Amino acid sequence: MSARAGIVVTGTEVLGAQIADRNGPWLSERLRELGVDLEAIVVVGDRPTDIEAALRWLAAEGVDLTITTGGLGPTADDLTVEVVARAQGRPLRLDEPLRRRIARAVEDAVRRWPRLDRDALEQGTRKQATVPKGATILEPVGTAPGLVVPPADGVRGPTVLVLPGPPRELQPMWAAALATDALRWAVRERTTYRQEILRLYGIPESEIAETLRLAERAGVELAELEVTTCMRSAELEIVTRFEPAAGPVYEALASFVRERHGGVLYSDDGSTVDEQVARLLTRRPARTVATAESCTGGLLAARLTELPGASAYVRGAIVAYANEAKTTLAGVEPELLARHGAVSVEVARALADGAIERLDADLGIGVTGVAGPGGGSDEKPVGLVWISVTGRDGAGRIDRSVRLPGARADVRERATTVALHMLRRMLLGPGDDDEA
Amino acid sequence: MSARAGIVVTGTEVLGAQIADRNGPWLSERLRELGVDLEAIVVVGDRPTDIEAALRWLAAEGVDLTITTGGLGPTADDLTVEVVARAQGRPLRLDEPLRRRIARAVEDAVRRWPRLDRDALEQGTRKQATVPKGATILEPVGTAPGLVVPPADGVRGPTVLVLPGPPRELQPMWAAALATDALRWAVRERTTYRQEILRLYGIPESEIAETLRLAERAGVELAELEVTTCMRSAELEIVTRFEPAAGPVYEALASFVRERHGGVLYSDDGSTVDEQVARLLTRRPARTVATAESCTGGLLAARLTELPGASAYVRGAIVAYANEAKTTLAGVEPELLARHGAVSVEVARALADGAIERLDADLGIGVTGVAGPGGGSDEKPVGLVWISVTGRDGAGRIDRSVRLPGARADVRERATTVALHMLRRMLLGPGDDDEA
Repeated sequence: MSARAGIVVTGTEVLGAQIADRNGPWLSERLRELGVDLEAIVVVGDRPTDIEAALRWLAAEGVDLTITTGGLGPTADDLTVEVVARAQGRPLRLDEPLRRRIARAVEDAVRRWPRLDRDALEQGTRKQATVPKGATILEPVGTAPGLVVPPADGVRGPTVLVLPGPPRELQPMWAAALATDALRWAVRERTTYRQEILRLYGIPESEIAETLRLAERAGVELAELEVTTCMRSAELEIVTRFEPAAGPVYEALASFVRERHGGVLYSDDGSTVDEQVARLLTRRPARTVATAESCTGGLLAARLTELPGASAYVRGAIVAYANEAKTTLAGVEPELLARHGAVSVEVARALADGAIERLDADLGIGVTGVAGPGGGSDEKPVGLVWISVTGRDGAGRIDRSVRLPGARADVRERATTVALHMLRRMLLGPGDDDEA
Repeated sequence: MSARAGIVVTGTEVLGAQIADRNGPWLSERLRELGVDLEAIVVVGDRPTDIEAALRWLAAEGVDLTITTGGLGPTADDLTVEVVARAQGRPLRLDEPLRRRIARAVEDAVRRWPRLDRDALEQGTRKQATVPKGATILEPVGTAPGLVVPPADGVRGPTVLVLPGPPRELQPMWAAALATDALRWAVRERTTYRQEILRLYGIPESEIAETLRLAERAGVELAELEVTTCMRSAELEIVTRFEPAAGPVYEALASFVRERHGGVLYSDDGSTVDEQVARLLTRRPARTVATAESCTGGLLAARLTELPGASAYVRGAIVAYANEAKTTLAGVEPELLARHGAVSVEVARALADGAIERLDADLGIGVTGVAGPGGGSDEKPVGLVWISVTGRDGAGRIDRSVRLPGARADVRERATTVALHMLRRMLLGPGDDDEA
């Protein structure tokens, strides 16, 4: 029996999709690390009745901890603290030392704008320093304090952890919350789970369903594991969560998957293809990479440079959107373009060669395709992408055409993922199993 | 009194943050367009009891429509349809014509994998063709049908719209759902709201709070409007929703904002800065653009090529991550790099000039900065980015350095946004108001 939690994300701008919620997923990962089961994430607007309804529902579901995010600002429409105080049966009071600390933080924050309304600022500070009696205060990172609010004597329900909305305030405050007795007491029943991820590339989800059935028939006790499969683009993740005692069962499952899908299993240690490519490029002999992209418009370069330290192995990129740019910047012969068209294996190869030559890289990646919505033809439909990964001085070449589904953004993103897997394959060399 | 809706996003991989939910926000926007109030988005895992609890809660809250996403796959752990059928009091039955249609779609989808287990496929097809009696079937886009499931006679509660999880299946199916009598009946009480968005660049949120107070004092009846403000990167959105009769009140608010913040108000027609830049580049005389990027690593080029039709105005980009690439590809003089360092106004300008020259563009954008986490110094800290937007043959130049907060990904993304605003400013020319 493990501790259970729910999350209430508040904010009309989140519910209305003007802003994406980053806190729910982030807290979900932290709860998993902590060994607390997450039941549900509820997104509601700023209306007190809606926040209250969400709190009541989670309490009725019997969670041990409810975490709220947002609604802690200085303005009158931010009402999370008031609603939580009522739900927990605790009166509000002004905390004078807290008020002074917030006032100092506000002074710092508004120094850039000297003409702000002082009355409004002071009113806001008092509001943010008004907290439920008996709550544990988490020091503000911005100007809003967080709170750990246990139910008052005689009130049944979960402890409520109140956190601010901006991720850069919420995230440091999580660590502070974990250090409080009040929070530790709320989640005292937690179980330490292990979580392992297997990542496969290029097989359909139904194959994994079948593999799980066969594993069970072969005696792997899947009931001991919580297995989730998840497909994104052409990558399939098998996420398994289990109590430490079930370790051998997981190992048996992992071996079974390895045996059946060895060729397409590319990660069993949690690493992403991005991290693997970075690792392979920096291991000795270190190699550098450059791209020459058409339809992906720089997305592949952006993704290769996403990880810190990318400057050690990314030389740069040429985004050759116009045909002239393919010629002048990447050195693609005009005859090649005229004869085969921009979307062709010949041009993908020439782009890769050009990236190597112009950027002095060990490996070049050429990408050319039809991202859509326009520009497709019967012969070269929207979604057709040619990719070439090429080594310097003829040190290997992998070419591939794919027909990618989805809208413009999907085609661009998927092409980027395919290219990264091809680069990984090239870096591993011919000694390894071939992918399907 | 308007129709009200709730959304239940199902999926252990969404709840566990392995995959980001795109459907909740997308459906939120569609409901708003439709004039239906969204009460809450609930994210739960794949457990039937959790899905059921979420459905029951929304029913108890009195919504008219509940939309579920996900859990429609061919495997036995996808149980949304079963749970919804039970909640709505409708028995399940195999729909034979639907089964045949799904079987054909499955044949198409698996043609690439000839060795798949036939039994597993047929079992999956039968499962996906088993639907609640009396439900309206929405034709599969992938292999999963959607459903509109009204409550059976004698059952109280909302109509449930069942949609698949993959966005590229869900989105086209939404249009099909809207065309059904069953869905139209469920949301018959909708109110047509108007929504308008004002977008400002480069002022703090507290200033807008103050502006709203002043507007109210000046007689603008804000109680007639639902105003939400939302900050992301340096862009601030004021989203106002109102019944058509309150149109004049909104116009009064918009005028008030325009008067106080004319210099930083960049959009009052819903357009994003990306769309404005695209529009400005294609209006006569049409102009082309190219970028030479260091720390943004291709993100700016990727963003400029995001919109369909970008090939008309984007020539391409140079991602000059290595200093040598800055010289060989973008023509930045080595002395310049040695004298001023890579992160300097001089190099930003030289990159912009290089982009124009090498890619034969009318406008060049140079970006160079310290994205972090390493590479910062006292003089040039992490987050410092120099950007130059330059016109061909000396036709104007805007340079700017910014000190951007946040982690590596934030710095890269914010720098991209700043560059787009500078490009917009350049395209508007000196005739317009200057930004703060």
